[in-house]
Amino acid sequence: MNKLKVKIPATADGSYPIHIGSGTLSGIWGELEKDFPKLRKFVVTDSNLKKCGHVKTLIGDKKVCSYVIDPAGEVSKTIETVVKIVESMEKEFFGRDSMVVALGGGTVGDMAGFAAAIFKRGVKVVQIPTTTVAQADSSVGGKTGVDSTISKNAFGAFYMPEAVYIDVATLKTLDDVQYRAGLVESVKHALIADAKYFDFLEKNIQAVLDKEPAVLEKLAFWNCTIKANVVENDPTEKNMRRILNFGHTIGHAVESASNFDLLHGEAVSIGIVGAELIAQELGFGDEKRFERIKNLLESLSMPLCIPKGLDKEKIIDIIKRDKKAVDLWPNFVLIEDIGKALFRDGQWAHKVDKKLIEETLDKLTD
Amino acid sequence: MNKLKVKIPATADGSYPIHIGSGTLSGIWGELEKDFPKLRKFVVTDSNLKKCGHVKTLIGDKKVCSYVIDPAGEVSKTIETVVKIVESMEKEFFGRDSMVVALGGGTVGDMAGFAAAIFKRGVKVVQIPTTTVAQADSSVGGKTGVDSTISKNAFGAFYMPEAVYIDVATLKTLDDVQYRAGLVESVKHALIADAKYFDFLEKNIQAVLDKEPAVLEKLAFWNCTIKANVVENDPTEKNMRRILNFGHTIGHAVESASNFDLLHGEAVSIGIVGAELIAQELGFGDEKRFERIKNLLESLSMPLCIPKGLDKEKIIDIIKRDKKAVDLWPNFVLIEDIGKALFRDGQWAHKVDKKLIEETLDKLTD
Repeated sequence: MNKLKVKIPATADGSYPIHIGSGTLSGIWGELEKDFPKLRKFVVTDSNLKKCGHVKTLIGDKKVCSYVIDPAGEVSKTIETVVKIVESMEKEFFGRDSMVVALGGGTVGDMAGFAAAIFKRGVKVVQIPTTTVAQADSSVGGKTGVDSTISKNAFGAFYMPEAVYIDVATLKTLDDVQYRAGLVESVKHALIADAKYFDFLEKNIQAVLDKEPAVLEKLAFWNCTIKANVVENDPTEKNMRRILNFGHTIGHAVESASNFDLLHGEAVSIGIVGAELIAQELGFGDEKRFERIKNLLESLSMPLCIPKGLDKEKIIDIIKRDKKAVDLWPNFVLIEDIGKALFRDGQWAHKVDKKLIEETLDKLTD
Repeated sequence: MNKLKVKIPATADGSYPIHIGSGTLSGIWGELEKDFPKLRKFVVTDSNLKKCGHVKTLIGDKKVCSYVIDPAGEVSKTIETVVKIVESMEKEFFGRDSMVVALGGGTVGDMAGFAAAIFKRGVKVVQIPTTTVAQADSSVGGKTGVDSTISKNAFGAFYMPEAVYIDVATLKTLDDVQYRAGLVESVKHALIADAKYFDFLEKNIQAVLDKEPAVLEKLAFWNCTIKANVVENDPTEKNMRRILNFGHTIGHAVESASNFDLLHGEAVSIGIVGAELIAQELGFGDEKRFERIKNLLESLSMPLCIPKGLDKEKIIDIIKRDKKAVDLWPNFVLIEDIGKALFRDGQWAHKVDKKLIEETLDKLTD
């Protein structure tokens, strides 16, 4: 038996810039044409973005090929939609010299990023996030994915964008509940990584709720800095990147168990409270810190308890199916202080007994 | 406007071994369990492989989860099949700690590799190619892809396997036409990269047609060495890797225009003749070399002309949609000598007038 070795060289680093501003959307197309003159651009967006005029602001009167996801939202986040995006590009003779321009929230970014990752084995993509969730979280880090009939993000790829453009002025047209729920990702970033950011959120919460551009730009800068720092250390989620899942293990399960009646941010708010209850039991909690966290979440009108009617067993069952589960039980991310994720025994995610999780869910149901 | 930079570090190199032997299939599962003990293995194969007993030889009496593509062949190479593979894995609770084991020809390898690339953002894959095409070409190099309703490999990813296992004894059960057509990839490798390999093929063509194991192992070694050398230099096809497309631009178009009545190797045989006709017109041809090439292809019973009834305009239209097309026209790979791809002006693929391609298609239609 003979043996050969194929030596695939390491790929070049995949660095990319994030541009943050207010009222910048109308200038982005010019930037793209300047920075990527040889690439044919294809816009992926959704019906909401079109309705509120952002597509027009981005492309003006230019003739641009595009795909408008309709209906907007998680319900369209399927492989069928990705196939439609790719086939639209094919019909317009797009080749490998293409750039997908994703304008929208997390689901648009996920689908456009995944379409770019698999179209003709990969074309370039740029993200222009327009929601609080996407600007804080999903546009940075290169995770893309769509749901199967069985689970969320069953299909996906790690695929970095060429650039991210954040215009905080686009948040003005966002539905108020969506807006506030998306800010929970900012609270999460502050809790796992930066106590000063948490102080800033507490002090400026009214300006945040009033959507003051200067404050929103600061939030965007803080969010992207924290997320970028984590992703740089661990792009494909081998260890440290897991801290971004703070509040998300219980959060995802509660969100799914509610059949997505709860918004992602609402569910993560409950998950964060859950993580703090667990921390208390394990000796990493602090009553005063817990009060501050609950107050900040309440000032965003986020729920702190599981709504009545959600089945505890169903939540447990979904936790078992968590993507990061090993032997049918995931590890949990905790904090030991505001701004500091708990790091023990070389791990950022920790074993927590199923019994303690059940007790925590009971407390969350009061 | 603020600007941040996300620095994604370069990924580690993606080297992998290719094991070549004869009658080795029954031992591969043990190797996999030894080398990858922690990964749950999922077999992707097709109905032909199952019928001729190779699946049984690979897994023995072990209980192994699998997906059998049925019907076998290009007709199943769709995104729907990939979705079915992924959903089968989900139903069996496969997680990120999975390994896809691809047993079969090029289409099995393509689909299994693509499914592995996009399942939960990527799990590991091993290739066990069982056809002349797959052993010579598609199992090495990490190209994966499936067809859309509009074009071949519209969806895909560059995704390297963990290992490749070639058992030339599996070729014995291969249909004779398939077997011979697959050898065209060997002829291609010899033409672009190694004159000695071409000599060897000419001298040993009867032993090759008789499927003598020792000779087949040599072919496998030669093919993998040439392909690995090209892929190592250019894993994501920025430039040099294009030489592997020798004969494939016209070949793919003719194959598609025939609605896949022509086998891939048959179409590439016509494409190689086309490339030599173009080389003659551009002053890089040689009458004696052309005769040797045609003789070798004929000894494999491969066609040298486009079959009657294929529409030239349709072929031209498909060439325009070629994945490598820029401004609706691809560049063409040519050779300047046996064993030597043409390299001019820093390029391995060359501008050829649409008019010359039309004339070439006319000559090929005689």
